[in-house]
Amino acid sequence: MLYFNCDYTEGAHPRILERMLNTNLEQTVGYGEDQYCEQARALIRKECGRQDVDVHFLVGGTQANFTVIRSALRPHQGVISAVTGHINGHETGAVEATGHKVLALPCGPEGKLTAAQVEETVKNHWSDETHEHQVQPKMVYISHPTENGALYTLAELEALSSACKKYGLYLFLDGARLGYGLTAQGTDVTIAHLARLCDVFYIGGTKCGALFGEAVVIVNQDLKPDFRYAIKQNGGMLAKGRLLGIQFLTLFEDGLYYEICRAANQQAYRIAHACREAGFPFFAESITNQQFPVFPNRLLEKLGQNYLYSTWAKVDENHTAIRLCTSWATKEEAVNQLIAHIQELGKEL
Amino acid sequence: MLYFNCDYTEGAHPRILERMLNTNLEQTVGYGEDQYCEQARALIRKECGRQDVDVHFLVGGTQANFTVIRSALRPHQGVISAVTGHINGHETGAVEATGHKVLALPCGPEGKLTAAQVEETVKNHWSDETHEHQVQPKMVYISHPTENGALYTLAELEALSSACKKYGLYLFLDGARLGYGLTAQGTDVTIAHLARLCDVFYIGGTKCGALFGEAVVIVNQDLKPDFRYAIKQNGGMLAKGRLLGIQFLTLFEDGLYYEICRAANQQAYRIAHACREAGFPFFAESITNQQFPVFPNRLLEKLGQNYLYSTWAKVDENHTAIRLCTSWATKEEAVNQLIAHIQELGKEL
Amino acid sequence: MLYFNCDYTEGAHPRILERMLNTNLEQTVGYGEDQYCEQARALIRKECGRQDVDVHFLVGGTQANFTVIRSALRPHQGVISAVTGHINGHETGAVEATGHKVLALPCGPEGKLTAAQVEETVKNHWSDETHEHQVQPKMVYISHPTENGALYTLAELEALSSACKKYGLYLFLDGARLGYGLTAQGTDVTIAHLARLCDVFYIGGTKCGALFGEAVVIVNQDLKPDFRYAIKQNGGMLAKGRLLGIQFLTLFEDGLYYEICRAANQQAYRIAHACREAGFPFFAESITNQQFPVFPNRLLEKLGQNYLYSTWAKVDENHTAIRLCTSWATKEEAVNQLIAHIQELGKEL
Amino acid sequence: MLYFNCDYTEGAHPRILERMLNTNLEQTVGYGEDQYCEQARALIRKECGRQDVDVHFLVGGTQANFTVIRSALRPHQGVISAVTGHINGHETGAVEATGHKVLALPCGPEGKLTAAQVEETVKNHWSDETHEHQVQPKMVYISHPTENGALYTLAELEALSSACKKYGLYLFLDGARLGYGLTAQGTDVTIAHLARLCDVFYIGGTKCGALFGEAVVIVNQDLKPDFRYAIKQNGGMLAKGRLLGIQFLTLFEDGLYYEICRAANQQAYRIAHACREAGFPFFAESITNQQFPVFPNRLLEKLGQNYLYSTWAKVDENHTAIRLCTSWATKEEAVNQLIAHIQELGKEL
Repeated sequence: MLYFNCDYTEGAHPRILERMLNTNLEQTVGYGEDQYCEQARALIRKECGRQDVDVHFLVGGTQANFTVIRSALRPHQGVISAVTGHINGHETGAVEATGHKVLALPCGPEGKLTAAQVEETVKNHWSDETHEHQVQPKMVYISHPTENGALYTLAELEALSSACKKYGLYLFLDGARLGYGLTAQGTDVTIAHLARLCDVFYIGGTKCGALFGEAVVIVNQDLKPDFRYAIKQNGGMLAKGRLLGIQFLTLFEDGLYYEICRAANQQAYRIAHACREAGFPFFAESITNQQFPVFPNRLLEKLGQNYLYSTWAKVDENHTAIRLCTSWATKEEAVNQLIAHIQELGKEL
Repeated sequence: MLYFNCDYTEGAHPRILERMLNTNLEQTVGYGEDQYCEQARALIRKECGRQDVDVHFLVGGTQANFTVIRSALRPHQGVISAVTGHINGHETGAVEATGHKVLALPCGPEGKLTAAQVEETVKNHWSDETHEHQVQPKMVYISHPTENGALYTLAELEALSSACKKYGLYLFLDGARLGYGLTAQGTDVTIAHLARLCDVFYIGGTKCGALFGEAVVIVNQDLKPDFRYAIKQNGGMLAKGRLLGIQFLTLFEDGLYYEICRAANQQAYRIAHACREAGFPFFAESITNQQFPVFPNRLLEKLGQNYLYSTWAKVDENHTAIRLCTSWATKEEAVNQLIAHIQELGKEL
Repeated sequence: MLYFNCDYTEGAHPRILERMLNTNLEQTVGYGEDQYCEQARALIRKECGRQDVDVHFLVGGTQANFTVIRSALRPHQGVISAVTGHINGHETGAVEATGHKVLALPCGPEGKLTAAQVEETVKNHWSDETHEHQVQPKMVYISHPTENGALYTLAELEALSSACKKYGLYLFLDGARLGYGLTAQGTDVTIAHLARLCDVFYIGGTKCGALFGEAVVIVNQDLKPDFRYAIKQNGGMLAKGRLLGIQFLTLFEDGLYYEICRAANQQAYRIAHACREAGFPFFAESITNQQFPVFPNRLLEKLGQNYLYSTWAKVDENHTAIRLCTSWATKEEAVNQLIAHIQELGKEL
Repeated sequence: MLYFNCDYTEGAHPRILERMLNTNLEQTVGYGEDQYCEQARALIRKECGRQDVDVHFLVGGTQANFTVIRSALRPHQGVISAVTGHINGHETGAVEATGHKVLALPCGPEGKLTAAQVEETVKNHWSDETHEHQVQPKMVYISHPTENGALYTLAELEALSSACKKYGLYLFLDGARLGYGLTAQGTDVTIAHLARLCDVFYIGGTKCGALFGEAVVIVNQDLKPDFRYAIKQNGGMLAKGRLLGIQFLTLFEDGLYYEICRAANQQAYRIAHACREAGFPFFAESITNQQFPVFPNRLLEKLGQNYLYSTWAKVDENHTAIRLCTSWATKEEAVNQLIAHIQELGKEL
């Protein structure tokens, strides 16, 4: 069985494990205040193109999301998200569990929000006579790539950022799969752009080559104070914090992060190409490491005999959208096999 | 200016105030354990047609809603509601503030949920491989009348109740305007039905003749323990609890609750009739004390010179749905004036 | 049976009920934006000696406490309180239910905190290397009178206020029984002082002559924004908000608040004097309407045959401290009877 | 500089890293449902001497504590803890942040609770007339070893367990340093005992040789349902869950857990012996890997030049209790050096 169901089926890029091994017996202080974390922070600040950002390392994405949101909002404030946003449907209500409503807005199959939607939501709120009876929108949550593999253009991010600034909202970008986004064909967005346009965002490690870990970058001064309290209170402060520093240090010291994500995208494009050639349509357009072809249910059974995939959405009675993922660990040979199988299945369409 | 904007523009039915005055200097214990509360509980149990229900008096509707929901659910569980449900859009995220997601389902202009929707939502949850990454549906919240003045039929309530029982969900009915529902033309639903079909519901006082107060009726044994702790913790335990007992005692000892709500409905029907005759369409069909006619914006300005109404929804660029409410305090003469004015405005259509 | 167990055994001062009756059929807007609330706010601002405070009316004390605290604090911040503070032991953990730790400090029988305690707590926090692993003290909660009937002097309040300002903490004063404090023999504290020294405080109505209601006064600019959202979200926004306005208007338009509380104190002093004369010691010194004599258990049974009291604290195997309360409604004749009975019991000491 | 400040200054036992390396390219499903987690669960069930317990792996101790507590309690219920308990003072109010009060009881320098204390607390609660105005005690939290290195005897645990069962409370044991407790000189407590006496407990990995990770064992049937939802909602569900399985598998497949903790204890005893011989008294008696000698402040500066320690408590103006820790990674030679230095310092006493 070959796994294409997600991008966390293996451990970490070998260079990360190697460095953990080499530093294993060194003594450091805990809780992210060691030298490896400091070095990793410096590298990330460099990617951001600015020194005045705070960088914190958390273990996982759900944790990063609700910790950032809880820390930023007052109790009556909510966070705008696409209805397909990870915080809205895939985190067991973690944001609500911290007391905040997710203000879910409709979106297309790409899973993106627009500046116009944000503007309309905020205007509607404040123009309502009884706005105090409603949750006040105060933050916009987007993911890049989105849950459906799509990317914002720089222009779209700039528009979102402007809308947020205009109405006093925070822009928060979930970069759980940021590496794939930054290295996708045709993207014009860099980390430095995020550090200019977002109030807070994070650079995903778990799904981009690390064992685990997300690097939260806080740009807005108002969101910086006391964030370490928030990490601790929400269970995200790793005792052996250096494990996070070591991983991000390795990923960013010489471009490994970009290199492995770019390679994963390339394998994904090959799969996409094969699906398209074989006649399978797509549920959503993706130029990143997740691909969402639509298969007739009768063919899925065959596919599933040798390949693990994620069921994504029911398209109609007889068709299902699935997710096929690549990662740093995806072997070219495995992709070759998958492609050959897709070509076979295509003949049965 | 005559107020038709809501059903809480005056104080309380005079008989309630009179009794407060007459009992004012009596000494009683506090926190709802006095004889008036006991008497009121007995009357409500009689309406329920069963003695085995717990009755608690809370001050207001938002408080009743989140106290019931928080007390019933475990942290990872959510409450299904129509997207127009009061808890979803008009209570400043009070339910989320207790940690629980409102699972909002689409609905028509009536604002009702169906048993089929509930069933589908629950099935979808449990059939998802990653259901542990989603909020578990555990309660269904409905309002009767709905926020748009509509009523469930007995058959619809029975279907909802069956669906809830089948899947282990609690059925919670918000009866903030229950009196108007129970006395509406053609309804076949009584309090006794609710006490058979719901796990918990409340009988609204604030909008039905009382100064304030909601009577929460807990039917399901599992929801009874420690509810008084929940009331206290959530700020709903009135020190001079007898004020609530006195009000519900007065409303239910000889049918005053039904009498005043029925009269309010009659006045609302007269307004509805006038709107229809004059050519104004309706945003939602209501047979209760709230009516939702649609007016051209140019005529609203004229209406607003002498009559206070609530703006309900923008229908299109030039038309707006408004809410006109009656209550126990609505004077026939005021309705006569309003009707005459509507007839005048109708000529300008 | 005569009730001396608490100060909320009757309804409201007759003038309040009278006014409710007289205004009952007037139509007003809801949610505290009516003219009566406006008038009451103006009167309270006058008592404060400053126009730049926000005044909000809430229904009860627990609600006022947790709404203020939740609105003011960030998630990792806590509120310092005397261990005997109402929020620490008598509100079912309402503050913790909003996510905040009550940092309980030891105190004497008076139930007061000192500026030195506050200073020490804050210093200890910040000097700890791992302060991020602890709750950050950000607010000081005091009650005046305290739960044990004691009062702060103006000098003590000034010291507390200075300590709070010095370390960036908010000073929050719970005035559930403020009226009795303001009119106690020898006090030098006025509402105007509170409006100078506190960041936020409230003037209690429930226990001082109203049916219910607490007037929250927000002095600190930082705590003002969006407080009405907080009231609504926490279930404290009364639909018929004018009921609160009418009550505070009546209490403050010509000094009724002071008059009735002063009278209640006088009756309490008579009871205290009788206890002292009869040889009963006191659990705590109080110069307000609550008195805490210590009785041998064998005599309590006799007392309880005709008088309702609150059990306060077990002093030793054979002695118990009780609470005897007076209020606006306490009749001189009832106190006469109680005093005679205490004198009788004193002979059995 | 040699680090004795805590037991998480190095990475993981080399055999753990080695296994991570060897399995790194294997593909597994995520979220703790892989074969390594299954194998680790089987081993832990074997230690428990029973098959009917649920085993879940979480990343850290604070996370484990608040996830277990939040999942077990209803909103009005609280958890009893020694005032020195980790949840009370070292987790930034994480338990309160989930809405629950920590009911802190006084304790001696050992940091232990007694069955009698629990019993008294529960009795006091239920005998109070106004118990609904107080947090209901529903769980007892103990740590073993305690924060001060002390251990419960089997008899003490049995008494606590009986008291909990008698009053319907859950017994929750925090075993962040359990390995050191299980292998301490003279202890009579095994994991099998915990699996008989506790309702839920966890076996610490982070401080006992793992990179990170705690194994939560749920014994009580009532606490089992839906715990995976709780893990996800609270940010504790590691995507690459196998990392936790691999670690606990390695620790328990052939007794490594016991072996490395026993060795650490031995080194700690040598340090303790040296302190005692040199004339330094102890703040608390510990027979585990944490030792708490008291040093004159003037000597601490000297100690600190070469050795990192934790400041534990101010004993008086001139004396401070410190913590010296050993772990699986402590080198005998480092301890030799420390001992020699302590002997030197002892001469200056």
